[in-house]
Amino acid sequence: MTDQQLQALLEQLTLDEKIGQLLQLAVPFFEGTENEGQITGPMAAMGITEETVKNTGSVLGLAGAKEAMAVQKAHLSKNRLSIPLLVMADIVHGYKTIFPVPLAIGCSWDLELAEQSAEIAAREASAAGVHVTFAPMVDLVRDPRWGRVMETTGEDPYLNSEFARAFVRGFQGTDLTGDTGRLAACVKHFAAYGAAEGGRDYNTVDMSERQLREYYLPAYKAALDAGCEMVMTAFNTVDGIPAAGNKRLLRDLLRGEWNFDGVVISDWGAVKEMIPHGVAADEAEAALKAIEAGVDIEMMTACYPDHLRKLVESGSVDEGLIDEAVMRILQLKRKLGLFENPYRGADVEREKQVVFSEEHRKAARQLAVKSCVLLKNDSVLPLRPEQNIALIGPFAQNGDILGPWSWTGSTEDAVQLYDGMLAHTAASNIVVAQGCDIETAAEEHWQEALNTARQADVIVLALGEHSEMSGEAGSRADIRLPEIQLKLLAELKKMGKPIVVVLFNGRPLDLRSVVESADAILEAWYPGSEGGAAVADLLYGAETPSGRLTMSFPYSVGQVPVYYNNFNTGRPQGAPDAQIRYVSQYLDIPNEPLYPFGYGLSYTAFRYSGAKISAPVMPPDEKLTVTVNVSNTGSAAGEEVVQLYVRDLAGEVVRPLKELKDFRKIALKPGESREVTFTLEESQLRYHHSDLQFASDAGEFAVFIGPNSRDVTELRFRLEK
Amino acid sequence: MTDQQLQALLEQLTLDEKIGQLLQLAVPFFEGTENEGQITGPMAAMGITEETVKNTGSVLGLAGAKEAMAVQKAHLSKNRLSIPLLVMADIVHGYKTIFPVPLAIGCSWDLELAEQSAEIAAREASAAGVHVTFAPMVDLVRDPRWGRVMETTGEDPYLNSEFARAFVRGFQGTDLTGDTGRLAACVKHFAAYGAAEGGRDYNTVDMSERQLREYYLPAYKAALDAGCEMVMTAFNTVDGIPAAGNKRLLRDLLRGEWNFDGVVISDWGAVKEMIPHGVAADEAEAALKAIEAGVDIEMMTACYPDHLRKLVESGSVDEGLIDEAVMRILQLKRKLGLFENPYRGADVEREKQVVFSEEHRKAARQLAVKSCVLLKNDSVLPLRPEQNIALIGPFAQNGDILGPWSWTGSTEDAVQLYDGMLAHTAASNIVVAQGCDIETAAEEHWQEALNTARQADVIVLALGEHSEMSGEAGSRADIRLPEIQLKLLAELKKMGKPIVVVLFNGRPLDLRSVVESADAILEAWYPGSEGGAAVADLLYGAETPSGRLTMSFPYSVGQVPVYYNNFNTGRPQGAPDAQIRYVSQYLDIPNEPLYPFGYGLSYTAFRYSGAKISAPVMPPDEKLTVTVNVSNTGSAAGEEVVQLYVRDLAGEVVRPLKELKDFRKIALKPGESREVTFTLEESQLRYHHSDLQFASDAGEFAVFIGPNSRDVTELRFRLEK
Repeated sequence: MTDQQLQALLEQLTLDEKIGQLLQLAVPFFEGTENEGQITGPMAAMGITEETVKNTGSVLGLAGAKEAMAVQKAHLSKNRLSIPLLVMADIVHGYKTIFPVPLAIGCSWDLELAEQSAEIAAREASAAGVHVTFAPMVDLVRDPRWGRVMETTGEDPYLNSEFARAFVRGFQGTDLTGDTGRLAACVKHFAAYGAAEGGRDYNTVDMSERQLREYYLPAYKAALDAGCEMVMTAFNTVDGIPAAGNKRLLRDLLRGEWNFDGVVISDWGAVKEMIPHGVAADEAEAALKAIEAGVDIEMMTACYPDHLRKLVESGSVDEGLIDEAVMRILQLKRKLGLFENPYRGADVEREKQVVFSEEHRKAARQLAVKSCVLLKNDSVLPLRPEQNIALIGPFAQNGDILGPWSWTGSTEDAVQLYDGMLAHTAASNIVVAQGCDIETAAEEHWQEALNTARQADVIVLALGEHSEMSGEAGSRADIRLPEIQLKLLAELKKMGKPIVVVLFNGRPLDLRSVVESADAILEAWYPGSEGGAAVADLLYGAETPSGRLTMSFPYSVGQVPVYYNNFNTGRPQGAPDAQIRYVSQYLDIPNEPLYPFGYGLSYTAFRYSGAKISAPVMPPDEKLTVTVNVSNTGSAAGEEVVQLYVRDLAGEVVRPLKELKDFRKIALKPGESREVTFTLEESQLRYHHSDLQFASDAGEFAVFIGPNSRDVTELRFRLEK
Repeated sequence: MTDQQLQALLEQLTLDEKIGQLLQLAVPFFEGTENEGQITGPMAAMGITEETVKNTGSVLGLAGAKEAMAVQKAHLSKNRLSIPLLVMADIVHGYKTIFPVPLAIGCSWDLELAEQSAEIAAREASAAGVHVTFAPMVDLVRDPRWGRVMETTGEDPYLNSEFARAFVRGFQGTDLTGDTGRLAACVKHFAAYGAAEGGRDYNTVDMSERQLREYYLPAYKAALDAGCEMVMTAFNTVDGIPAAGNKRLLRDLLRGEWNFDGVVISDWGAVKEMIPHGVAADEAEAALKAIEAGVDIEMMTACYPDHLRKLVESGSVDEGLIDEAVMRILQLKRKLGLFENPYRGADVEREKQVVFSEEHRKAARQLAVKSCVLLKNDSVLPLRPEQNIALIGPFAQNGDILGPWSWTGSTEDAVQLYDGMLAHTAASNIVVAQGCDIETAAEEHWQEALNTARQADVIVLALGEHSEMSGEAGSRADIRLPEIQLKLLAELKKMGKPIVVVLFNGRPLDLRSVVESADAILEAWYPGSEGGAAVADLLYGAETPSGRLTMSFPYSVGQVPVYYNNFNTGRPQGAPDAQIRYVSQYLDIPNEPLYPFGYGLSYTAFRYSGAKISAPVMPPDEKLTVTVNVSNTGSAAGEEVVQLYVRDLAGEVVRPLKELKDFRKIALKPGESREVTFTLEESQLRYHHSDLQFASDAGEFAVFIGPNSRDVTELRFRLEK
């Protein structure tokens, strides 16, 4: 379809038909679905009429080739100009083949596998009739109380940006029109949704614009630079105005400054939520603010269909604003090839072939292996096949390891830990007992677990949070494991046997009491469909752990927020002239997290040596080279994530103690060494000044190289300008 | 001294002498003190020479008429032009007569007594030779982990502003020149020091400028509007730049926009702290940034004396900047009458008369009575004189009840709880036992306490934090009472006897386990010199509790920050159409604090009835009247704090669920009723819009009247414009 044809189509649309394009409704509204579009219950309260549904531009939550085609077919027959529906869905970390949750994927530091996971998700979902995924979620996070930390890659703007690009590449490929095995991506949640006050989902966000630009915006921008087609607005306020009605954020910054010309969609119900937020007196005002701000699609409330017509007729809204929004939506439909083939990739046969294929599951297993982080290991791991293992805990035999946002996946298809372990040892070597549920225990299970443990050489204790304890609206004020699980651990500890704790959970936890009692801790997150197999591969040493944390594990919830790229303050702890009392510290806990950003152990050991910088001065427009030699000094092959951090020692505004600038993931055999080389250039030293200018300053810089953000070698150089 | 003479004096000063005026040194540097100005130890490391001391403009931490006069005398003899020293000191909540800590004073909601406390502090300190006090501290706070919450009046900008004005009036009076019984006040810490991230003292502060102006700045401004002579800068960064080098904050906003022409002083060492903060490469740059920003006096580092001369000579600093700063200092000296009488109020005889006088102690006792907050009372209080009391706990007989920033006071002079109680009952009715220390217990004390409790009708358990657990650099990540005290409470609870817990502490605590076990809880804070007497008056019903919290008590540290004037979010808990899961909430705790802002019980009961508003519409430039009838329906005389809150239902930016706009503290005899009348006008409805304009919007408002921020009656009106 040419631009001209698209324009002609727009001109044929009545105002109501245009407004219909700006509405997104959930599946149950549509004919072709199970309930055949019979709108009942809470849906009915929205006041959506059949006429409105006919004009609607997109549907969400639809997946499955047969149903998707039926819905599209019915819609095309009813819509006056047969404009196809856009089919959107939350395909966040896999469709049927569920990959680890994004926070776990972040811990892989593996951009290729991350991209592959998105590509596979797109391949499966597109065959199931999905056109657009509401992903990647790239919100920067610093508060583990927030349940959606599992959905992001972590606390670092650079790393989040890298993953944002990788996910967009994976979902979209390079030719969205020609390659029907891809999805359009929708980066979310614009902006700063991850900074909800108190870690309480949907809560107020407040920060300086400089902080917003320096830390929170880069990953969204990176996704857009990679060609991401859509942007979803956040539920929260940004400087006092909900994102869905925030003109400065959407129209001035996103569209104006960043030149984004794709589709902006609200999150579920967020347009109408301007009323409880208290910036709109009624739905008409909410509609007005959203369209003025630049929200093209209203998701699942009816402010646009019920009020935009009147707002146009009264002159409050220029119809040109609506035309612009409709055109962006039509352009996306064109790009997805929907005018030529409204069913696009949907194909019942192909769906059967690709969905949950062996190849995809293998990829999921590989990424799960790379995502687990070994936090502690006092010579217990890897297990030996001949050892007698007591496998205990609520996650010993539990398929709830897909994590939130895996609605298309099936917990029944997930490989459970016990089953995964059976691939490495005889059934006679593992006795399994639940011990307790996630939050409760039955006496007989408890006793059974203790009896089981008595017979074993090693106890493997699979603990964690059930998947509803994180994810959207899954905020916890207490970030320890549930009490009963800690009690089980303490009880087992009394037996004096080695204990390996495997954690299945969606957030950094306060693990102090676990660290005290366990001899080894493997953070498995929600590892996805192949989780049990991947974890077992690691436990038995078929694979070597290589994951590194991308979010700090706080010492306790009273330390939140704790993140590696913090500022020094004027009275840093540990300074040479520091007083005992009058430094920035807590009286009762350390300033440092329990486990820092970048941290993770291996079954082998790596030695860093000979770190050097190519010159003490970086002249204008020249690069420096930073090199370090890394050796595998242990007896296993393993992968190491060599990390490069920088500190600007004196800025115009305060600068972080460390900022990740680059990293290399390298594989080394026992005894093998490699020289790792990084280049540094002026553009990497820029930051937002007090006037928001993004520039670097001449002066002294520190460079740090190491296996994590804490244990580093420091070098210095001077930037000249 | 005329302006002309002052100008002439300035012109006589050499550059070094001018720079000397900009320096403030602690007492030990000066001759006339105990060590006669022999500079040793860490002081020597500052590199201050005798020559520099001779030129120095002010001294801090000096108090005591004899010593103050000796120091001044020695200085006058050495300083070439005999320019008197300004004597400054932290007289925060009393000089020798120590009043409750400011957070407790806030809970009195009694502006007159607050003013009186400052007046008495000024009377005592001025007789002891002090000219300027580093008070009031008016930092708005929302995080009880921060130790300095004890030094502020709480979380509300309106109430903090009222107290800021009251304290300034009390310290300064109306004629600082003529009334030598007053002190110049120095409001602190400019700005937003109370918002340290993670509640860790000195830590980063980041917020939008709108938030800064709407919540954090008003109390500083109120102090200045009341004529406060000085401003102290904060340790923290404000939008990335430490306050002491923050030109936008000090020169543009404070001096430019607010027209403040008094003296700005850095906090202790804060100029040099720009180096660790990372905005100055060295001391010269720190000096440059501070003088450019508008810091007149550098406290206790030597960046000015060591570098300003060179900066002027090299043309980096205009000498005019220095002249301005010196002139402001000279003007303050003139206003304090120091050129006529450099010893000012210092008077050994008068000091003996006024310091810790009976009249002053009576005032301290009165304010302590008003500051205590009764949090719970299941018919245990007041105690009857004939009851057998077991008085147990680390604060049963403990003078550490003055709280931080009471260095001039004496814990030995403090009335301990046991002694206070003896005024109400015979010694034979009270058996006392310590039970445990603040953080540890000896077995024999523990047993003694249990034995003591067995004999009693009622257990009074005096628990709390020692004074080093709050105050500057006194941050705690765990805000419960120390474990051992909770254990003692739990142990005593097993006896089944009524337990009254009296708390001596400096912050809102997580009191859940105390609430579970105690039958009554009296929050006494650090009540000051007469603390034990005041608390005993309340325990035995000689006085009726009337304090109301001015800072929310969180449910747990995982809920922080929790404050009453929060926003609604788009998905508020408890809305009629709210889903079960997808609302802004924690899975494991309520959103509401354990005890809300404005909360406090009495020994009597108050009934609110007949709340009404004079009209449903507020026309431009007209006032509305809100009235309510309050009756004392109980059997004791008591005081009630009638609170008026407003909510703007739809703003241009989100508006708080409630904002305190006015209150009345009324005393009612049993059976007595009173109609309480408030007026509301448009100016009270203004707020900072997204463009920072301070204005109101036409539209619907809710008005709430009640005894606290939670239990209110709602009315509505419409603002027309």
